[in-house]
Amino acid sequence: MVYDVIIIGAGPAGMTAALYALRAGRRVLLLEELIYGGQVANTPEVENIPSISRIDGVEFSMNLYNQIVELGAEFTFEGAESVEDKGDTKVVVSNAGQRYEGKTLIIANGAKRRKMEVEGEERFSGRGVSYCATCDGAFFKGQETAVVGGGNTALEDAIYLSALSSRVHLIHRRDTFRGSQILVDRVLALPNVEIHYDCIPQAVIGEDAVTGLSIKNVKTGAIQTLPVSGIFVAVGTVPDNRRFLPLVELDEAGYILAGEDCLTKTPGIFVAGDTRKKHLRQIVTASADGAVAATMAIQHIG
Amino acid sequence: MVYDVIIIGAGPAGMTAALYALRAGRRVLLLEELIYGGQVANTPEVENIPSISRIDGVEFSMNLYNQIVELGAEFTFEGAESVEDKGDTKVVVSNAGQRYEGKTLIIANGAKRRKMEVEGEERFSGRGVSYCATCDGAFFKGQETAVVGGGNTALEDAIYLSALSSRVHLIHRRDTFRGSQILVDRVLALPNVEIHYDCIPQAVIGEDAVTGLSIKNVKTGAIQTLPVSGIFVAVGTVPDNRRFLPLVELDEAGYILAGEDCLTKTPGIFVAGDTRKKHLRQIVTASADGAVAATMAIQHIG
Repeated sequence: MVYDVIIIGAGPAGMTAALYALRAGRRVLLLEELIYGGQVANTPEVENIPSISRIDGVEFSMNLYNQIVELGAEFTFEGAESVEDKGDTKVVVSNAGQRYEGKTLIIANGAKRRKMEVEGEERFSGRGVSYCATCDGAFFKGQETAVVGGGNTALEDAIYLSALSSRVHLIHRRDTFRGSQILVDRVLALPNVEIHYDCIPQAVIGEDAVTGLSIKNVKTGAIQTLPVSGIFVAVGTVPDNRRFLPLVELDEAGYILAGEDCLTKTPGIFVAGDTRKKHLRQIVTASADGAVAATMAIQHIG
Repeated sequence: MVYDVIIIGAGPAGMTAALYALRAGRRVLLLEELIYGGQVANTPEVENIPSISRIDGVEFSMNLYNQIVELGAEFTFEGAESVEDKGDTKVVVSNAGQRYEGKTLIIANGAKRRKMEVEGEERFSGRGVSYCATCDGAFFKGQETAVVGGGNTALEDAIYLSALSSRVHLIHRRDTFRGSQILVDRVLALPNVEIHYDCIPQAVIGEDAVTGLSIKNVKTGAIQTLPVSGIFVAVGTVPDNRRFLPLVELDEAGYILAGEDCLTKTPGIFVAGDTRKKHLRQIVTASADGAVAATMAIQHIG
């Protein structure tokens, strides 16, 4: 039994890849070890999908799941332990010890957002604590917000939120930014962004909703609580791709290197979605990758 | 009155760009001279949007239109005649002589599919005559189909359809292909693809639905009718971008050159969707471009 396309990961990228491969009459297997929909399934409200004003992330994920099941998608609730390149076919060894063989492989295993690891974070995740300003900033319009982090994403988030929030607090553990200077300059020019250098988050404060973020100055030891209702955590994301070496190349952060054609260094192995090195990680960009990767896979099979 | 983002074209790319810019609290103007939704609005059935099993192209377009109107999108029913770069702002001169000024500009004016220009083509457009195999191939599963064209897209379409159709007729006006050799080899190896060299389409045959395609051999003059129910026209697409020179660079076919970051050679001018040089033109890839272009525009404004 050789599948046409094996897909690792059933988030928007993997499931859209399945949609495209199935509509092209190909046999498709998806491996998913956690949850159909990936990060989206943990998002209570999604408002940035074209033509869908508002949808629960679980509903979006189940709609997409049902859509591809109807087209004949096959699933296995396992993770991918390793991948072998046999030339004309690729073999995926699952974490349950099964071996699956496909003419092509699409890696769409996503990435995890790194957490602050402070009290209250888990409890308010998706309800005041967000890991994506572009996704959730609009829910805090006119309110006071905080961004935690010091890299480009944190700086971009502060710029993004400055047009929406009454005031943005940028919490950075060092006294200089490691992000690009052009972004730093723009943030410094924004009158409603207040930078808290040398500070780390201590706890998310709130009863039913977030009412504040407690931060500590690591040089002076001073603690203060910022009166924010939205906290945007931008301390990095964590892909999990070392198991695919040496069949793909990774950047220093661990993302798989590929252009928008989704080709990796190994013919027949493609990459789609958040796990690819790219600028913007959104449902719609992940889905686009899935469509492209499936199209390339179909052309590879011939 | 200076807009934050002016968008030329209200297809999936332009309207998704608006969605992202509006959710980021920016003021947005869209120029559209034909139809909200672009090519999608002429598509009766769309089945490849993640989480939407099936939707009418008009309904999809109106949903997206309403979604951005609710967020405050401003529209003008005009085309863009020319664009001027004033440095910090860009001016769009409309075909009604109006001047609109924006801090950033996103060109999302799409592309038109080139037609065969034969009898019956217009009447069966969207109902048996398609300009996108990836979009519509699945509607002709198990049936006999024809692809008209000799470039890479035609070859890719033949490969794509070979797994869906009982038989694929490839109609090519010359006796050799100008597409890439690897694709030619793959098509030649497919047992259910029949190539009709030196042939041009004459007429689409049918009463209520397409029942055939009449073709003529340009060397012998022989005419025959192929018993197909689906005809896929792959004779090229036509962008319309010369009016944006010299602010953007075009490839030989007239598409605007930009990577997946959607940046053009002019700071503050971005390009999204089918009008950009890219591999796969789908609703979902156009939408992804829109999200990226808007995000880049927001960062440009600071």
